[in-house]
Amino acid sequence: MVYSASLNVRSTKNRDMIDITGDVAEVVGSSGIADGLVLVFTTHTTTGLYINEHEGGLVDDVESVLSKLVPPRAGYRHDRVDDNAAGHIQSILMSPSLVIPVEGGRPVLGTWQALFLAERDGPRSRTVKIKVMGE
Amino acid sequence: MVYSASLNVRSTKNRDMIDITGDVAEVVGSSGIADGLVLVFTTHTTTGLYINEHEGGLVDDVESVLSKLVPPRAGYRHDRVDDNAAGHIQSILMSPSLVIPVEGGRPVLGTWQALFLAERDGPRSRTVKIKVMGE
Amino acid sequence: MVYSASLNVRSTKNRDMIDITGDVAEVVGSSGIADGLVLVFTTHTTTGLYINEHEGGLVDDVESVLSKLVPPRAGYRHDRVDDNAAGHIQSILMSPSLVIPVEGGRPVLGTWQALFLAERDGPRSRTVKIKVMGE
Repeated sequence: MVYSASLNVRSTKNRDMIDITGDVAEVVGSSGIADGLVLVFTTHTTTGLYINEHEGGLVDDVESVLSKLVPPRAGYRHDRVDDNAAGHIQSILMSPSLVIPVEGGRPVLGTWQALFLAERDGPRSRTVKIKVMGE
Repeated sequence: MVYSASLNVRSTKNRDMIDITGDVAEVVGSSGIADGLVLVFTTHTTTGLYINEHEGGLVDDVESVLSKLVPPRAGYRHDRVDDNAAGHIQSILMSPSLVIPVEGGRPVLGTWQALFLAERDGPRSRTVKIKVMGE
Repeated sequence: MVYSASLNVRSTKNRDMIDITGDVAEVVGSSGIADGLVLVFTTHTTTGLYINEHEGGLVDDVESVLSKLVPPRAGYRHDRVDDNAAGHIQSILMSPSLVIPVEGGRPVLGTWQALFLAERDGPRSRTVKIKVMGE
């Protein structure tokens, strides 16, 4: 069994971390699939997905580290085409694709795990594809 | 067909790399699934998964690079709440979730590939969820 | 339903970014699976997979950032065994494994998304495993 959905996620800042845990859980609940897995996939090249704790200080720390590792406008060739190379490369350090187990009709996440869409070139409207597979 | 299992993994140091390749292969073997995929998922926010060579020097190098890229106690806001921000952020540079092909009832790994649970805030007892799907 | 294929990918330089988007789409098309997901998995420890824009300047930028974050021959212990530690560690910052949704018999990728095999220790012949699952 395969169940599909799309999330429309609107970022409100140039760099933004948006918690989509609840949206993904809702899609899994609607799928009627009790046991299997859920694929979450962002269709953009300046966003990434990551799973970690939703604590405001930590979210800011993740921002700081991404900007330190891949600083904006550090002489990138792609910035001559489009002023967002750092956003592309930061996205690669995360992932476009995450797969989470499903049990009892819910994504199996640990107590502190939340799923974030990391916007690296907003504000924009973004599409996240979801596939639930199982039985 | 979906087959599920959990691994209990005990780390013995604050930062520890634990090879779980054999445990995952054993679960796949028990599943009765010959052809498909296996999802390995850590339910924690200060652990990550990675696949690479199990050579002692290289495992130490991975440790060094993670500590260089995201040094412990470098003024993180999350350290005011809980003294482990670097462990959270290092985990994001790896992944909570890896999917491996299954053929002939075994995970398809290359000659040098081993699967590690990277502990970033131990020693602790950790839970890794495994889902085998296929036919 | 499960459909399997292998790609043989030949890199031509020591560090090389090879766009395999078309090859993966072709496998999905051949699978007869309309709706589900495709797993792309590299069986090597000095290659990684990433999805991002195929613009020449950006591909060079990704190279530069990987070399800045994990510089070759920076005193790694593994270099005493085999002179390629940086290639292993750069691979870990990407992923060995990516899962992409499939709809209408095609991988669902955004306008600017291309899938790259990042060679970090070539030139070599590389094997990428593909599994399409769905209905």
